[in-house]
Amino acid sequence: MSGARANAWKRLGQRALGDHRIFQLQEQRYESPRNAHVIDAVVLHAPDWVNVIALTPQRACVMIRQFRFGTGAVHWEIPGGMIDPGEQPLAAAMRELREETGYVSARWVGLGSVAPNPAFQSNRLHTFLAEAALLEGGQELDPSEDISVQLVPESELDGMLASGTIDHALVAVAFHKLDLLRRGLEVR
Amino acid sequence: MSGARANAWKRLGQRALGDHRIFQLQEQRYESPRNAHVIDAVVLHAPDWVNVIALTPQRACVMIRQFRFGTGAVHWEIPGGMIDPGEQPLAAAMRELREETGYVSARWVGLGSVAPNPAFQSNRLHTFLAEAALLEGGQELDPSEDISVQLVPESELDGMLASGTIDHALVAVAFHKLDLLRRGLEVR
Repeated sequence: MSGARANAWKRLGQRALGDHRIFQLQEQRYESPRNAHVIDAVVLHAPDWVNVIALTPQRACVMIRQFRFGTGAVHWEIPGGMIDPGEQPLAAAMRELREETGYVSARWVGLGSVAPNPAFQSNRLHTFLAEAALLEGGQELDPSEDISVQLVPESELDGMLASGTIDHALVAVAFHKLDLLRRGLEVR
Repeated sequence: MSGARANAWKRLGQRALGDHRIFQLQEQRYESPRNAHVIDAVVLHAPDWVNVIALTPQRACVMIRQFRFGTGAVHWEIPGGMIDPGEQPLAAAMRELREETGYVSARWVGLGSVAPNPAFQSNRLHTFLAEAALLEGGQELDPSEDISVQLVPESELDGMLASGTIDHALVAVAFHKLDLLRRGLEVR
């Protein structure tokens, strides 16, 4: 590696902009260490999120399809959601898998965490692998959810990710972490 | 695959919430096809984004480090940014690589696009590979940018991604697409 070090900016203040249920917006005033330039940056605070790659004994991945308000389209996804206040990431992952799909697992592996978008989001996404996942019950959906469960053979996943059939960035990140784990790397 | 189909929700209306320079917020009212439940969903409209994996003839990746206001921390990233109005994704990728790092390339390969977060964002991220990248000039930074250029040997990238040293989800997605390309898959 080469090059100069990147420096932290100095935070001069902040103010709340609005509460939008799934996230809160804040304006933060920062001063550049390079030229003392001052910027008012908008920051989106959401709870940390989880998502889950659940694999059945028959080598299928438990995927979901749901309409998303951001894009106005139905996407291929893996189960996941917001961590509740005081909840541990693994507990949230187990809960979201069960509620959204009815599947459970006794074999959980952490796939680490990422920053969904450091440019304007403060939260993290924690990813888990649930092996030997089994269907135990029905879905437990909120009135505001409409989720279709779909079993996808593991052998089809890379093709779906390459082609853009699976086009949700945060879902792709989970499968990338699993790839790295399977190549023998320690994922965090 | 198995399971019921996921259905689109019916949009009943929308209203602007606010303009935050790098994105605009809108509230969209939707009705569920499952139970006629009505929800007011917040949608973040940003321009499409690009990012670039630039590799030098010496098999190094041209990475950047910069302080990010969302997390209040310095992250390892690849060059990228917002597509200007009327600009093509490839042109934006060439521009961002040059402005942020001073590197240029004559060999560009598309790595497809993803939805950064379909749950509440409408935009897409377009990813490119720039091969045989060469340093042609200096950086051209906005007053609001402070970017350190770092050359990272390609052989170190998977380790940095697995360990979370590279923890920006949208950067990880780019390297995932490159992996899929190198495994012989057609990426879109």
